[in-house]
Amino acid sequence: MSRTLVSAIPGRVGEQVRIEGWVARVRALGGLTFVILRERTGSIQAILERGEWPNLTSEAVVAIEGKVVENPRAPGGYEILATQVEVLNQTHGQLPVEVSGTELGCGPEVLVEQRVLTMRHPKQAAIFKVQAAIVEGFTAYLRSEGFLEIFTPKLIATGTEGGSELFSVPYFGRQAFLAQSPQLYKEMLVASGAERVFEVGHVYRAEPHETSRHLSEYVSLDVEVGFIQGEEELMALETALLRHIFAHLAATCEAELMLWGGVPTVPAEIPRVTYAEACERVGELSAQGEKSLCQALGSELVFVTAFPATERPFYAMPVPGAPHLTKTFDLVYRGLEITSGGQRLHALPALEASMVAHGMSPEAFGAYREAFKHGMPPHGGFAIGLERLTARVLGLGSVREASLFPRTRNRLAP
Amino acid sequence: MSRTLVSAIPGRVGEQVRIEGWVARVRALGGLTFVILRERTGSIQAILERGEWPNLTSEAVVAIEGKVVENPRAPGGYEILATQVEVLNQTHGQLPVEVSGTELGCGPEVLVEQRVLTMRHPKQAAIFKVQAAIVEGFTAYLRSEGFLEIFTPKLIATGTEGGSELFSVPYFGRQAFLAQSPQLYKEMLVASGAERVFEVGHVYRAEPHETSRHLSEYVSLDVEVGFIQGEEELMALETALLRHIFAHLAATCEAELMLWGGVPTVPAEIPRVTYAEACERVGELSAQGEKSLCQALGSELVFVTAFPATERPFYAMPVPGAPHLTKTFDLVYRGLEITSGGQRLHALPALEASMVAHGMSPEAFGAYREAFKHGMPPHGGFAIGLERLTARVLGLGSVREASLFPRTRNRLAP
Repeated sequence: MSRTLVSAIPGRVGEQVRIEGWVARVRALGGLTFVILRERTGSIQAILERGEWPNLTSEAVVAIEGKVVENPRAPGGYEILATQVEVLNQTHGQLPVEVSGTELGCGPEVLVEQRVLTMRHPKQAAIFKVQAAIVEGFTAYLRSEGFLEIFTPKLIATGTEGGSELFSVPYFGRQAFLAQSPQLYKEMLVASGAERVFEVGHVYRAEPHETSRHLSEYVSLDVEVGFIQGEEELMALETALLRHIFAHLAATCEAELMLWGGVPTVPAEIPRVTYAEACERVGELSAQGEKSLCQALGSELVFVTAFPATERPFYAMPVPGAPHLTKTFDLVYRGLEITSGGQRLHALPALEASMVAHGMSPEAFGAYREAFKHGMPPHGGFAIGLERLTARVLGLGSVREASLFPRTRNRLAP
Repeated sequence: MSRTLVSAIPGRVGEQVRIEGWVARVRALGGLTFVILRERTGSIQAILERGEWPNLTSEAVVAIEGKVVENPRAPGGYEILATQVEVLNQTHGQLPVEVSGTELGCGPEVLVEQRVLTMRHPKQAAIFKVQAAIVEGFTAYLRSEGFLEIFTPKLIATGTEGGSELFSVPYFGRQAFLAQSPQLYKEMLVASGAERVFEVGHVYRAEPHETSRHLSEYVSLDVEVGFIQGEEELMALETALLRHIFAHLAATCEAELMLWGGVPTVPAEIPRVTYAEACERVGELSAQGEKSLCQALGSELVFVTAFPATERPFYAMPVPGAPHLTKTFDLVYRGLEITSGGQRLHALPALEASMVAHGMSPEAFGAYREAFKHGMPPHGGFAIGLERLTARVLGLGSVREASLFPRTRNRLAP
């Protein structure tokens, strides 16, 4: 007999079905045994009448066959009158975490350490359903706008972006590094004729601190666009992209969102402040400053623009007539920076001058610099940290809660 | 004036437009200059009448404004009578590869070395459009079947799968490794209650050989399914999945496919042979053996089943009554293995015994082994190598041609 999903039970009243899942709860009452079976589409009660049944432990994997009946007093309104119970896989030893309660009674360390169990709680499962839906919305919108999905290497020859927090990898007698971002590759692929590219991929930062904002390995949602006139287009694109993602979440994950902070929205216009204005209002754009900024402007989403050149990488395009400023932006969401972006330099002489000004040698840039010799369009882009966006959509305390198996200075397992 | 894409030109006859792209060709004839401009949606000819125009070099990035006219003798049937030409970014020095010819006249090394230029050739661009469409088809089909997209760590604490070809990474005073596959994590996430999961992500093999079949870093399309009865369901799932992917390619990439081997199809039933039968027919399942197998069976796609336990990892489920064989399979496509899969062990005692039989210590498996104590459903899955599938769909000579920036023993750049 093939499996019927719990979500399909209401259409099977009076029929014999087989359900499969985990034992969420067992309770004996007046000669009857009540079993709550949980699986990915929901939970349902099965009733085992007096008789010989296998021993059912919490979280064992079972198949139950029986007749579907309507019962207004049963959780969900339906139950199964069991005729056969089979243990598909038994459990061994005590459960380290109880996952069938209303709330998960464990701290952030156990949450991650026992991910296999804690994900069985609907609130935890919701985080990763929302995360997957964010990626689905991101990719769907960009494809509809003519973007090509790319896969760029994470093993790279040089840490050319100038970051100090690089992981190194011995590579067949040479030294490789783990990419901190697909920045240089996505720019090169704009120039390859693809013009508009996106990537969903891991990036690596050897973060020396444990904070609620940082991971050593995270998923970056990267976008790069050729033939732009300026960073305005990029902010407009990101606004439309977030609007699409949030609408997709509302359409596909409403129940999951309601377990957390509710359905997120994007205002008609996202307020903008320059970096200088932001600093005037909140002192500095630290973690606390970003929180204060959203409060000060009365908006969950705030674009910060015109960052000083000293705060941005060598490839940032200067503001014409004010070369100490750049055509760049951050997007702060619910008090956390979720995006950096901006227009990039596209003329080779200006790029080389900027490399030198940033203390870098143009000769070290190999194929990246070569790309600027043979037809690099005006371009720019941005990147969204997936765990950060997920955490802020749901109001999680730390980005670690939005990573299935987070990597930090002190955590390399599970 | 905002940009008009070449694909939209037929609807703009008689109007003034601005086109932007690369200079594919410049030719002077009878006082006129003919410029072919190329961009992501196509190419079009612009005519510059006698007068003062900027110098246009091959592959420079330009914007041309002018009136759209129909001309049956122009390539594509339309041309632009230019009134203004602006160089958005000039070129520097000689082009290392000519990319505007019918064929790209360069070998496989230059192809990759000069990816930014070689991708401008329609046949090369086609490879990565098809690759992106494979991923789109893969993710769309699995989402429609209730699968959750997951992101699992590539930085891992131990090389627990028993592979010797691991890259190591110094990690805050400890030793980490780059994951060879998401195998253990995807199994754990089946047990987390997600039941059905997929991942599109990089995996790493410190391949000591340079071959046309191997990369040090490649994209693995991973699938894992809980509550299965056996490997038959997995082969049925992969057949339906490939059918969906190929139909999606036919619907979205027909022009690109026609530049290569044409539109691929999946037969009504993919032939199956056991490993033992396959070896009887072709000697051994080497690279040459896989080619011979497709020929011998007269099918582009062949499932090889029932691999000996000695050929498979510790987690493979034995065949009941024949424990030297496993409930596993490979899928060979046009002479190349593109998938390994199978049912996995789910009972803890059997798993631990298999670890020991494979010379491994169950104690080394941390959270993976722990997952089998608290409700692991019967499960199995498979993985498709993205570059291999792309290469076989198009008939490329090497998987390196299906990687934007391939990583091999001797290649770490660009």
